[in-house]
Amino acid sequence: MKSATPNALGIVQPQIFTFAHDQPFVMEGGATLSPVTLVYETYGQLNADRSNAVLICHALSGSAHAAGLDIAGHAGWWDDCVGPGKAFDTDRFFVICSNVLGSCYGSSGPTSINPATGQPYGLHFPVVTIGDMVAAQVKLIDHLGIDQLLALAGGSMGGMQVLEWAARHSARVRAAIPLATTARSSPMLIAFSEVGRQAIYADPNWQDGDYYGTGRRPDAGLAVARMIGHITYLSDQSMHSKFGRRLQSRERFGYDFVTEFEVESYLKYNGLRFTQRFDANSYLYVTKALDYFDLSSPAGSNGNGANSLAAAFAHAQHIRFLVVSFTSDWLYPSYHSKELVSALTAAGADVTYLDIESSWGHDAFLLEVDTMTRLLGSFMDRLAREEGVI
Amino acid sequence: MKSATPNALGIVQPQIFTFAHDQPFVMEGGATLSPVTLVYETYGQLNADRSNAVLICHALSGSAHAAGLDIAGHAGWWDDCVGPGKAFDTDRFFVICSNVLGSCYGSSGPTSINPATGQPYGLHFPVVTIGDMVAAQVKLIDHLGIDQLLALAGGSMGGMQVLEWAARHSARVRAAIPLATTARSSPMLIAFSEVGRQAIYADPNWQDGDYYGTGRRPDAGLAVARMIGHITYLSDQSMHSKFGRRLQSRERFGYDFVTEFEVESYLKYNGLRFTQRFDANSYLYVTKALDYFDLSSPAGSNGNGANSLAAAFAHAQHIRFLVVSFTSDWLYPSYHSKELVSALTAAGADVTYLDIESSWGHDAFLLEVDTMTRLLGSFMDRLAREEGVI
Repeated sequence: MKSATPNALGIVQPQIFTFAHDQPFVMEGGATLSPVTLVYETYGQLNADRSNAVLICHALSGSAHAAGLDIAGHAGWWDDCVGPGKAFDTDRFFVICSNVLGSCYGSSGPTSINPATGQPYGLHFPVVTIGDMVAAQVKLIDHLGIDQLLALAGGSMGGMQVLEWAARHSARVRAAIPLATTARSSPMLIAFSEVGRQAIYADPNWQDGDYYGTGRRPDAGLAVARMIGHITYLSDQSMHSKFGRRLQSRERFGYDFVTEFEVESYLKYNGLRFTQRFDANSYLYVTKALDYFDLSSPAGSNGNGANSLAAAFAHAQHIRFLVVSFTSDWLYPSYHSKELVSALTAAGADVTYLDIESSWGHDAFLLEVDTMTRLLGSFMDRLAREEGVI
Repeated sequence: MKSATPNALGIVQPQIFTFAHDQPFVMEGGATLSPVTLVYETYGQLNADRSNAVLICHALSGSAHAAGLDIAGHAGWWDDCVGPGKAFDTDRFFVICSNVLGSCYGSSGPTSINPATGQPYGLHFPVVTIGDMVAAQVKLIDHLGIDQLLALAGGSMGGMQVLEWAARHSARVRAAIPLATTARSSPMLIAFSEVGRQAIYADPNWQDGDYYGTGRRPDAGLAVARMIGHITYLSDQSMHSKFGRRLQSRERFGYDFVTEFEVESYLKYNGLRFTQRFDANSYLYVTKALDYFDLSSPAGSNGNGANSLAAAFAHAQHIRFLVVSFTSDWLYPSYHSKELVSALTAAGADVTYLDIESSWGHDAFLLEVDTMTRLLGSFMDRLAREEGVI
């Protein structure tokens, strides 16, 4: 067994899977897409009976690069938890992570070339739902020859994908680990999404989404959207301990409109940095997918929760769930996870639930590394033993 | 006694007080302003011994028009609580409300004409603090011949002004009613302020603040800033009850980027409406004043809370405080009020504190009319009786 050093996986090459060349991929909203590309990475080896596959689902701004190093030497977004000897131990499990549909890290999205025009899709790319993201992942898993995933794990939007798999592709799932997420986006979540989108729409460089190749990009709007997002990922408490009322490189107030508190500087820096790595149209698509997500309503309906959440998991009795929420997460508050746990229990599933005491807000699922390592590691270890995965 | 009908005060004319013609007004940041104008309204009559004056302090986007009708027939922002027979009973009290320095409702601010140039100040207007707002109000109270205010009341930024009066002009105050506020702006509050400002800066029509007379105004940026604000004034719970996941004029998802959830529509409408009544530069000034506010630090210092909050109220022992917070207010959480109450108690002041159970978030101080009427009314009634105000 290799030791768990940060770069034990070494450089990981992204892989490309393209499907729906002949038969177009039909989206939840009725539009079709052809072809469809997913970029994905894998870590570890698929075993002989193909029973050790774990799909990691990324959050809003994530990519397929979950672990190891990319060609530029950057560690994956969940490198803390994926690798030899880590929670998702790549000496035992075959771990897969694919970039979601609608994103901008290689999978089909608004930055992709529309074969009908030879130009980037922009807003002509069809609106994507969590259901569409997962339906594309199902094609990838088919392609990899995997009948059933040993486990799925993800936080935030990644957790929504985990729940979508468990509800609508139950037979393909043995265990599901939704972290810091919800089965039904709240109006507050929709509100923050929409304000982020409005910040992008308000940027004249957005040009109704047709900014590719114009030399003008809606970076200012995207940066504001990201700053709003960052506030929601933190908590009142974590902002107190991280920044307090400290000034950035100043002893006294400047009485001007130059950024002066550390928290302002943090937001500005992260807003700017985001524009160097993310696409504004993709931000629109991915946040829209969040907003639509509601397992308690029939797909596409007006979201009045006509179905009970338990009904959504009627075929999930065989799935083992590990549901995790964080006490200071006000974007996906714990009561969402508690409602989910009630529904899963009512549906007859085997559920372990933890509401973890943390001051880190929504970001806790990525920041509480020791707790997550212990928790996910022991869940995966027990699962592997009971399923006879060696 | 007149009956408490909504318009019992009838039409109220705003009044203008201009000072610092010869001797310039020195701001906390060291800049000077000359002259300074405050627009104010009064309701009721000042009694013979000038002992029945109540100053109402408005919040971020408020104006001097607290009660009665303006010339266009619009009721004041706190008409529910100010008027004959209401909590601040204008049959007994002489109620004053003035527009804060830096705002855009008639008092000196970035939209005012800079006498040095004959053009609007724009960003040449000096940065305003809560201390400056209150120092200007002190001049107004002097002008009105009032030695001591019977009471001061205000919510949110209005509450900060109330606390500033109590801490730095103690002798002029008999009773203070800070509602849904804090003695020290939190990093989260600063973060939301800054993102709102960044949305304005990002609008090319802002033109570094010099947009007056150009025919281009940063309405898009200001609308985004206001939408962010509106989210913070509500609560998760109030959004659930107000909007849920209902769609606006649709039965099913549109799978497009047209506004479709009711909560989106609400934010968009209010963002747009705000641009018709508020100035973007004023938004920058007033939010900056919020951020700087910290009674636990010496004015202008880096905000590390060098002084204790109790020390700030060392001369406030004679003041009667009614401190009110609301359980679902996450922008000015109850613990801020509790810390304030501890400091006031340590300073030896007479404090009544209520943490009111409400689902309406920060907006509760304006929306919980019945509770506020009872509470403020009985506090004012007792105060008036004990002070012999007739």
